[in-house]
Amino acid sequence: MIVGGAELARERYPEISFLMVGDKAQLEDLLAGIPALRDVTEVRHTTQVVRDEDKPSTAIRQAKESSMRRAIDAVADGEADCVVSAGNTGALMAVAKFVLKMHPGIARPAITTFFPTLKGESCMLDLGANLQCDANNLVEFAVMGEVFARTVLGIEQPTIGLLNIGVEELKGHEEIREAAAILRETTLPIEFKGFVEGDDIAGGAVDVVVTDGFTGNIALKTAEGVANLYTGFLKQAFRSSLFARLSYPMIRRALSKVRTRTDPRRYNGAMLLGLNGIVIKSHGGTDELGFANAIGVGVDMTRHGFISKIKDDFERLKADQQSLQKAAVS
Amino acid sequence: MIVGGAELARERYPEISFLMVGDKAQLEDLLAGIPALRDVTEVRHTTQVVRDEDKPSTAIRQAKESSMRRAIDAVADGEADCVVSAGNTGALMAVAKFVLKMHPGIARPAITTFFPTLKGESCMLDLGANLQCDANNLVEFAVMGEVFARTVLGIEQPTIGLLNIGVEELKGHEEIREAAAILRETTLPIEFKGFVEGDDIAGGAVDVVVTDGFTGNIALKTAEGVANLYTGFLKQAFRSSLFARLSYPMIRRALSKVRTRTDPRRYNGAMLLGLNGIVIKSHGGTDELGFANAIGVGVDMTRHGFISKIKDDFERLKADQQSLQKAAVS
Repeated sequence: MIVGGAELARERYPEISFLMVGDKAQLEDLLAGIPALRDVTEVRHTTQVVRDEDKPSTAIRQAKESSMRRAIDAVADGEADCVVSAGNTGALMAVAKFVLKMHPGIARPAITTFFPTLKGESCMLDLGANLQCDANNLVEFAVMGEVFARTVLGIEQPTIGLLNIGVEELKGHEEIREAAAILRETTLPIEFKGFVEGDDIAGGAVDVVVTDGFTGNIALKTAEGVANLYTGFLKQAFRSSLFARLSYPMIRRALSKVRTRTDPRRYNGAMLLGLNGIVIKSHGGTDELGFANAIGVGVDMTRHGFISKIKDDFERLKADQQSLQKAAVS
Repeated sequence: MIVGGAELARERYPEISFLMVGDKAQLEDLLAGIPALRDVTEVRHTTQVVRDEDKPSTAIRQAKESSMRRAIDAVADGEADCVVSAGNTGALMAVAKFVLKMHPGIARPAITTFFPTLKGESCMLDLGANLQCDANNLVEFAVMGEVFARTVLGIEQPTIGLLNIGVEELKGHEEIREAAAILRETTLPIEFKGFVEGDDIAGGAVDVVVTDGFTGNIALKTAEGVANLYTGFLKQAFRSSLFARLSYPMIRRALSKVRTRTDPRRYNGAMLLGLNGIVIKSHGGTDELGFANAIGVGVDMTRHGFISKIKDDFERLKADQQSLQKAAVS
């Protein structure tokens, strides 16, 4: 899946090259059949792996020769522009944070991904890196999300919303209301739209939905579950009678458009933001097309200088916060 | 919508009768055209109303003659078996709690509703009554949800899951892990299945999904948003070409089955659980069919003796907790 995905990505982005870390014999075997990919790939041998059941702390302390660690090391050393992994999410986050360090001015990393909406595409963060967040964490997520939407989604002036259970100022947890107050006052050029509700996620009310990692994870997976429910119901409907079966070929093209727009492979590739380097997490259960899309996200972020743009914005945020504090003191 | 919904409900449940509280002239006007409904309806006049923008505290203190308050009073006085309202949710919750009081042994009320899944129907609670919940609140929600699923959904031995961001024992907020520990140890005849994730909601992994009001509200609305997204995408697909347009009549029946199964009107009627009386909240924006379904939920809960069943279970839970504490002491 990974080698096949790399070949698909190479066809799309002819200028990229690969550093593959893993069992050399196995990788060479897979690459032997794809000479064009072999030509642009360096293979680095290791047999140590981080397993799905490994704790993040184990991955940091005991897996220093693992494929995951050595791939991240390559980004830290400037050998690679980004790392794409389909491995253990918690371990990937921990090892990446340990090796690459956090971006100056950002306290916590966040996971984000983009998804289809009625109006186009939006992104949401955090999706599970931080269960509990304070107001400042949420503000940082808003700034990171804004840069991400500009860089990867190509939205000139992205709109930001804070996920809440109502749009009125007094609703929700205290940290959310506090984050809203900070975002309303900031002089950063951020298009803050206030609170959004659960149905606004797929509705596309804003380009960036900001929330804590617990809520974001539940919302994203709930959405995936409902998407599966619809797919299942539609399949049952088309099998429910001979007439429905016969009509299916007539409607297949129209339905395949819906499938394409909601294809989870299209939205594969979650980004670990806030780190001093580009780290992409692919679903473990995806296929070549999905993995190629995850690589594509890394290529986009690299090309558009995500890391330097986020650095600029955080320097401005810091200056902004200092001026806010001064104003409060004077 | 309310009078029309009542007439639909009367046709379905010929034994029920109504007490309608509101502007007498307006109600008599609407009822004049429906003699069969007029025969089983008592009209109680009031012109005071709780508005959508009213705070719960205002509704309690200043709206003692409102239609909402007087309808709830009728349940407290034993004049009515249940109350169905399409009004302000926060006010309804507060006034109902103030007038009816909490059920002995239950600290906080919870809002629940049922919804379609791949396997049938499930329910989730809390959906917004309690933003922050401790472990005991969640355990109480589990017990209330179990009784609800047995009584209203007709499931003999309902399964319970705690909503979390992973199924492993160590995942999630502390209060969720603590609630899981209590539910695992209880001797109550509850089928506790441990943690479930967001995609398990629509997947139908359990009959009762237990969560705090913030998360539950976000999850439910996220699901509604994705349902709208699919409906929107399907509409666009069928309009996308002449061929798709022509094939639509052939497939309409199959699609209408999907629509029926996911029709929000079918799932109208959220229940306020934990109160000493049956209180149903209808969507304000529903139609006659939706309102009739909300009345139907009240009828089901009354017929199946929801209040006395929940009383039995909470007495057992209390005895159970005392024996657990004794065991801890001895």
